[in-house]
Amino acid sequence: MRKETSQNLGDADGILLVGASERNADLYYATGFLAPDPFVFVATAKKSLMLVNDMELDRAKAQATVDSVHSRFRFAEQMRRDRGEEPGSNAVLLALLREMGLQHVRVPRDFPLGVADALRAEGIRLEVADSSLFPQRALKTDIELDFICEAIKTAESGMQTAIDMISSADIRNRQLYIDDELLTSERVRQAVHHTLLDQDYVAERTIIACGDAACDPHQVGSGAINAGEAIVIDIFPRSAAHGYFGDITRTVTKGAASPELQKLYYTVQQAQDLVLGAIRTGADGAELHRAVLAFFADNGYETGVHSGRNQGFFHGTGHGLGLEIHEAPSIGSSGNILQATQVVTVEPGLYYTGLGGVRIEDVVVVRDDGCENLTRFPKVLEL
Amino acid sequence: MRKETSQNLGDADGILLVGASERNADLYYATGFLAPDPFVFVATAKKSLMLVNDMELDRAKAQATVDSVHSRFRFAEQMRRDRGEEPGSNAVLLALLREMGLQHVRVPRDFPLGVADALRAEGIRLEVADSSLFPQRALKTDIELDFICEAIKTAESGMQTAIDMISSADIRNRQLYIDDELLTSERVRQAVHHTLLDQDYVAERTIIACGDAACDPHQVGSGAINAGEAIVIDIFPRSAAHGYFGDITRTVTKGAASPELQKLYYTVQQAQDLVLGAIRTGADGAELHRAVLAFFADNGYETGVHSGRNQGFFHGTGHGLGLEIHEAPSIGSSGNILQATQVVTVEPGLYYTGLGGVRIEDVVVVRDDGCENLTRFPKVLEL
Repeated sequence: MRKETSQNLGDADGILLVGASERNADLYYATGFLAPDPFVFVATAKKSLMLVNDMELDRAKAQATVDSVHSRFRFAEQMRRDRGEEPGSNAVLLALLREMGLQHVRVPRDFPLGVADALRAEGIRLEVADSSLFPQRALKTDIELDFICEAIKTAESGMQTAIDMISSADIRNRQLYIDDELLTSERVRQAVHHTLLDQDYVAERTIIACGDAACDPHQVGSGAINAGEAIVIDIFPRSAAHGYFGDITRTVTKGAASPELQKLYYTVQQAQDLVLGAIRTGADGAELHRAVLAFFADNGYETGVHSGRNQGFFHGTGHGLGLEIHEAPSIGSSGNILQATQVVTVEPGLYYTGLGGVRIEDVVVVRDDGCENLTRFPKVLEL
Repeated sequence: MRKETSQNLGDADGILLVGASERNADLYYATGFLAPDPFVFVATAKKSLMLVNDMELDRAKAQATVDSVHSRFRFAEQMRRDRGEEPGSNAVLLALLREMGLQHVRVPRDFPLGVADALRAEGIRLEVADSSLFPQRALKTDIELDFICEAIKTAESGMQTAIDMISSADIRNRQLYIDDELLTSERVRQAVHHTLLDQDYVAERTIIACGDAACDPHQVGSGAINAGEAIVIDIFPRSAAHGYFGDITRTVTKGAASPELQKLYYTVQQAQDLVLGAIRTGADGAELHRAVLAFFADNGYETGVHSGRNQGFFHGTGHGLGLEIHEAPSIGSSGNILQATQVVTVEPGLYYTGLGGVRIEDVVVVRDDGCENLTRFPKVLEL
């Protein structure tokens, strides 16, 4: 997983990361090692190393993609003998940097301030990366594309589970039932999660939201699912094996949709087609996003606050996908210029209380002359 | 979920957190709001507020336990009109702090350096909390204890699934089989995860590791499970509903254990009893940990590097449990003085390559005159 870090040094002598890689994608990207507790990663143009607790030492030596792994405990031993007391973790890190001759290191924007203040107080120069410390993380290698394709296929299998349940349900008093039991968002969500788990994928906050509940784009949904209402299904599982995410959204109705809802749906689908047709190397994410807003407005779908709530299209058109569910690049109000091998979602949506929400999301890889849609799942409104 | 923050102000005018609460337990604790993307939380002695993206605005208003929720977009609107350009997120945050009259704020140790540098450059004084920004997070309320008890019961149900599978397996050529299919660590892990998921709990990196694989305490284990070898089963699920963790470890053998393994097991169990009997308000976590090391050494189990690997007891005796799987207080080499209503694991272990690993883990709540063991699951070595 480790890429050459020399290109990330800038003027600095080294790069430094401190954190728990389970919650820090840069650190996982740099080391290929998942751990729940903080550890240290340092790389110079010549070598990379990690400083970990004894408990993680042998596992890190076996799994991490760095040149060497060191025990924080043993590194601290000499200091302990000299001082007669246990050195704090910042003192150990300082000693490590001094031993490596590093006076000037580059760190990510989310580097912990407590560590930074301690190092700066001892004369270490910390330079915060302007944007990502690893901009190459947005450019996917073939292996990473394989992982993401697998993750998307897994997400699609979860979508199939949801669609099958809703398709096979009976309608009574406008609510859905399977085997005489009310079909709720919770029940569909749990079935989807079991499908994903069978493939060693973990999902949380899977969205199964119908009617007005879907008008908050991150509302997961709860309770009964109603016939004729738009049901937004958004599934974003992460592989327990390699850590890459998939992401897919479909919107369906059980039974017929009203003409107004049909128009909403097909307008969103046309907006998605518009973006899918425009993505290529050099396309401007901010421009693509403005084009979607303009397309919606041209079709009578305004964005703004009505009845005290956001209505219309008030999230980004797309985001990068990889070791984080939301990563660079962005197709949104502050968008990026797209480059080949980047992987992005394309997920316009429209949300109006009373009418409901519609979002349709595919994942594509940017190519020089267009984009390749990695998502195959059909788009059908009425089940 | 929000506790009074005035006690956390120190000399500062306010406290400030910036992050994604899905990966930042302090922020979730302060706001009761789970989000995948960064947002801002500010609290003074008088009020608390959040600044979020439009997409999260209505959901945050409904779910967050703060006094008010504001749209980053609308807050930036005036700035956008004044400057003719989109203000960056740091500029928006600075404007918010100025509008609130905050010149001096307290931040957590893991506050993002990029934001800190931008604010300090504009004259805002940032004071990093010495330890936790919310030390009261370690002291559990009755509601939190209920959540943790539920999480432990759920972890125990996962343990029952694992134990049932191993108990019911047949032994052929020293390996385990169920329905003529090899019983692997992966198969047991997946069954455990399905059991947890049925209760809306998510687990990752559940450890089902036998023999030498269990000698790396965070090695999850893979492949065949062998009769007569120590199988370490460590399950730590998190509730998708409220975010609290459970944690349990048992060690078993399928069939008879060797006398050496039996001695290892009962020594670990005695060490656990020793700690369980000593935990109370005022007990020193570092002393408890040293007592375990001494007890092991007295029984002939030395800790150190042998054959190039850590052997013996080389992790902490226990850790706090709550919204993070590892949180304050610590029962370890740099331990804390325990206080009533803290929740801690008690999990001594011994690991020797060739012989195997043993770890036994319960979760207790500290009381004035002892501790209350929240874990009920039986401790039986041989299945």
